[in-house]
Amino acid sequence: MRKQKKVSESYVIMTELVLPNDTNTLHNLMGGRMMHWMDIVSAIAAQKHSNRIVVTASVDNVSFSESIKLGNVVTLEAKVTRAFNSSMEVHIVVFAEDIPSGKKFMSNQAFFTFVAVDQSGNPIDVPDAVPETKEEIELYDGALRRRQLRLVLGGRMKASEANELKSLFDLKEKSAK
Amino acid sequence: MRKQKKVSESYVIMTELVLPNDTNTLHNLMGGRMMHWMDIVSAIAAQKHSNRIVVTASVDNVSFSESIKLGNVVTLEAKVTRAFNSSMEVHIVVFAEDIPSGKKFMSNQAFFTFVAVDQSGNPIDVPDAVPETKEEIELYDGALRRRQLRLVLGGRMKASEANELKSLFDLKEKSAK
Amino acid sequence: MRKQKKVSESYVIMTELVLPNDTNTLHNLMGGRMMHWMDIVSAIAAQKHSNRIVVTASVDNVSFSESIKLGNVVTLEAKVTRAFNSSMEVHIVVFAEDIPSGKKFMSNQAFFTFVAVDQSGNPIDVPDAVPETKEEIELYDGALRRRQLRLVLGGRMKASEANELKSLFDLKEKSAK
Amino acid sequence: MRKQKKVSESYVIMTELVLPNDTNTLHNLMGGRMMHWMDIVSAIAAQKHSNRIVVTASVDNVSFSESIKLGNVVTLEAKVTRAFNSSMEVHIVVFAEDIPSGKKFMSNQAFFTFVAVDQSGNPIDVPDAVPETKEEIELYDGALRRRQLRLVLGGRMKASEANELKSLFDLKEKSAK
Amino acid sequence: MRKQKKVSESYVIMTELVLPNDTNTLHNLMGGRMMHWMDIVSAIAAQKHSNRIVVTASVDNVSFSESIKLGNVVTLEAKVTRAFNSSMEVHIVVFAEDIPSGKKFMSNQAFFTFVAVDQSGNPIDVPDAVPETKEEIELYDGALRRRQLRLVLGGRMKASEANELKSLFDLKEKSAK
Amino acid sequence: MRKQKKVSESYVIMTELVLPNDTNTLHNLMGGRMMHWMDIVSAIAAQKHSNRIVVTASVDNVSFSESIKLGNVVTLEAKVTRAFNSSMEVHIVVFAEDIPSGKKFMSNQAFFTFVAVDQSGNPIDVPDAVPETKEEIELYDGALRRRQLRLVLGGRMKASEANELKSLFDLKEKSAK
Repeated sequence: MRKQKKVSESYVIMTELVLPNDTNTLHNLMGGRMMHWMDIVSAIAAQKHSNRIVVTASVDNVSFSESIKLGNVVTLEAKVTRAFNSSMEVHIVVFAEDIPSGKKFMSNQAFFTFVAVDQSGNPIDVPDAVPETKEEIELYDGALRRRQLRLVLGGRMKASEANELKSLFDLKEKSAK
Repeated sequence: MRKQKKVSESYVIMTELVLPNDTNTLHNLMGGRMMHWMDIVSAIAAQKHSNRIVVTASVDNVSFSESIKLGNVVTLEAKVTRAFNSSMEVHIVVFAEDIPSGKKFMSNQAFFTFVAVDQSGNPIDVPDAVPETKEEIELYDGALRRRQLRLVLGGRMKASEANELKSLFDLKEKSAK
Repeated sequence: MRKQKKVSESYVIMTELVLPNDTNTLHNLMGGRMMHWMDIVSAIAAQKHSNRIVVTASVDNVSFSESIKLGNVVTLEAKVTRAFNSSMEVHIVVFAEDIPSGKKFMSNQAFFTFVAVDQSGNPIDVPDAVPETKEEIELYDGALRRRQLRLVLGGRMKASEANELKSLFDLKEKSAK
Repeated sequence: MRKQKKVSESYVIMTELVLPNDTNTLHNLMGGRMMHWMDIVSAIAAQKHSNRIVVTASVDNVSFSESIKLGNVVTLEAKVTRAFNSSMEVHIVVFAEDIPSGKKFMSNQAFFTFVAVDQSGNPIDVPDAVPETKEEIELYDGALRRRQLRLVLGGRMKASEANELKSLFDLKEKSAK
Repeated sequence: MRKQKKVSESYVIMTELVLPNDTNTLHNLMGGRMMHWMDIVSAIAAQKHSNRIVVTASVDNVSFSESIKLGNVVTLEAKVTRAFNSSMEVHIVVFAEDIPSGKKFMSNQAFFTFVAVDQSGNPIDVPDAVPETKEEIELYDGALRRRQLRLVLGGRMKASEANELKSLFDLKEKSAK
Repeated sequence: MRKQKKVSESYVIMTELVLPNDTNTLHNLMGGRMMHWMDIVSAIAAQKHSNRIVVTASVDNVSFSESIKLGNVVTLEAKVTRAFNSSMEVHIVVFAEDIPSGKKFMSNQAFFTFVAVDQSGNPIDVPDAVPETKEEIELYDGALRRRQLRLVLGGRMKASEANELKSLFDLKEKSAK
């Protein structure tokens, strides 16, 4: 049986101050810099779960809503949602805060997937991720569906075989009619 | 009628050398750094199409396959695929090259979406993007489907209303049976 | 009466990955880079307490013991210990972790002092910091003594007037003999 | 007998231009960046004295007075004050200059301590530092006192045994009354 | 006979966005940053020609005319002009573009020379560079003259022996009078 | 009469430690990074002479000889050689030092030219530079010749009119024969 590890053991918080070089000419944080931070915080979460070096395998859709300004404080929270053999899905939530004005908001969330590798760079098995809270269980359950979407979008699975995914599109019932 | 602009006018090539600080302890390029570069090259493509300041609105699924090593040369090519009011989808293809060994391969591709804004940060209309080559027309045609996927994943459209998207999953015909 | 704010409201966690440019030729984290991170995390804690822009006023003695290696994860935790008019003392604890080997240790701790300023850079009053836990109360109590040491070392107070400080050197009793 | 080396042989001057990413939202140099520079210049001084790789052992109290602005030129001068077995105390003086306005001022000074190490990271003896000028001799003489303060603050020496330190606080005579 | 390679095979395009840290207090791109970019793009061109690691051997006169502003897009195009044993001259042309205002101009051009080296850092022969277009042929022809100028300026050739160079100064005919 | 200022008043020393991101895959300092440093140190020298913001106008031929390794200390010394209306020529000498091995050598020298500008970026007159030592006088005398070379290479002066320059090529006497 595979080793088991709690989801909460992989939890990481990262805090960044938005500096001039992170911003565009409107003094807003550039999306690429945020994704760079997301990648680092989620890689650390995956490392903590697997106690291995990890490499980024994929990034799911990320959308950017409200702009984050120069001097704002960005907090990124990451934890592993579920493990599959050598890969781990990590959930990241990003908050932005303009401290002097007291404004704080959830900026966005994302799912990154990592593969644990040995010193030669070959994939290696990781422990199971065991969810405990209601939110962790929901993220765990959704991980299979998101994985199928990744495989379909990556051309490695036929959409017609992505049974979990159909629920996302609410199509199972429709086709049953 | 909206102003029109050829897709080819937005074409940008960016070349980067993988330096030590871009790499993990296996001396491989980190995914977050590549996404940072993708964001910059695609923002420039969107700027060239719109002649406006642009902000990143969303990033579609990106997957990372083969590792890129320290000292490799990374070439990123970006062009607008289609414009929708104030937003533009940009297609990015990334190549990596280990020049001394003569090894070159396509590393990955991605779709980033940008919104053109005025000096106050408000969205502003952009020209239509006119595709000319066979590849540009295919990317233009697929843009609607990818846009619906973004809206569904972002919770702003019901999957049952995403008609274009269904073709991606080849579900229309199946449900008709 | 001055506004009051709990110490815990200023708590910040920052996580950093040690990258090549942060290290010396032995691949160890350089002390200056760590102090740069300490300054940022503690400035954010002071900002959270005061809801103001803050400037570094002083750094107390910091000592570096065990070396931190390339690829290690450094976690910095900061919180305000006590406020004096416009200044705030912040306590920072630094942990280092070599995740693949499972080695984790407390690297060092430090006290940084910040002054809250308005848009013109003039000092401005901040809320009182209210400690709650045993550890917060001990840090609160020691803050006066550390402040006197700073003033004596900075030549702005005579050692003979630094009553709180004497206890640090266990001299009160001795002189009472 | 230990090898001897003049203090002046370790003298280093470093000049830095304050760039946007070094500044906070008031366009003032952040304290952490200055400490990063202080660490580099004093490490070079310690290297020149010892002809060894050196690691930062401790930083004494540093206070920041006048703010340094974007575009200012910062000059850091460092030299070893005294050597103890494998460790060296380095004195750093920092000047800031707003060249267009002709304003120049001493910003602050600090003492950093380094340990010389061999290729395996083990401490290794360094030459004695021989002071020549009046200022070098004063710094040499004070080094013992500052070292005791470091040991007391680091919990490695009892205050009651720190004979040199007492003079700093002018307490010996007082307690004799 | 030496291997031959077309000039066009070494062609590289690099695109950079001018960020805050690249600029001076007038928000103009600093010359040193541009030369840093020129060095990288031309080193890649020399690598592509030689399939070797390359080191910068020299930089010819560069002049900077119009200023390039924060937020501008800088495009650098480089190609090898001619090879001499283990060294290659690379021609770089730099364009700057203020996209929102639609202003684009050629900023400057430069010649950098590189030497191909093996893993031990020893010079190693490179293929001949074969020019094809009119512009490539002109650059190829001028390379000998520029090389003599470098040798004379570097004190490694007497001006009186620099026959090719004389034509640059139109002095051959004059001295014949 | 123009204001006069001694050459020695513009003298600047800058010291840099070669960090991983400054090096190529052979762990040697890249030429572009060195030119970036040369530009900063010489801009500061020109600022000190003129008490103005300055912009890089041109860089003369620079050649790179011996390689500088990761961990080496690079010292750059710059001073104005001569002023012409609003422009100043600056001479930079670069030394590299491998401190643990005790190896130190002059790496290269260069001439950069700057123009002093006002807040709107318009050229503005600077003081005369007055040389005092034998070396300063030689550099002052050669400045006119180097300036003509820049003008000829930049296509702004005919070689036949560059009287000072001819001496460089030792051609005046030869053509007189």
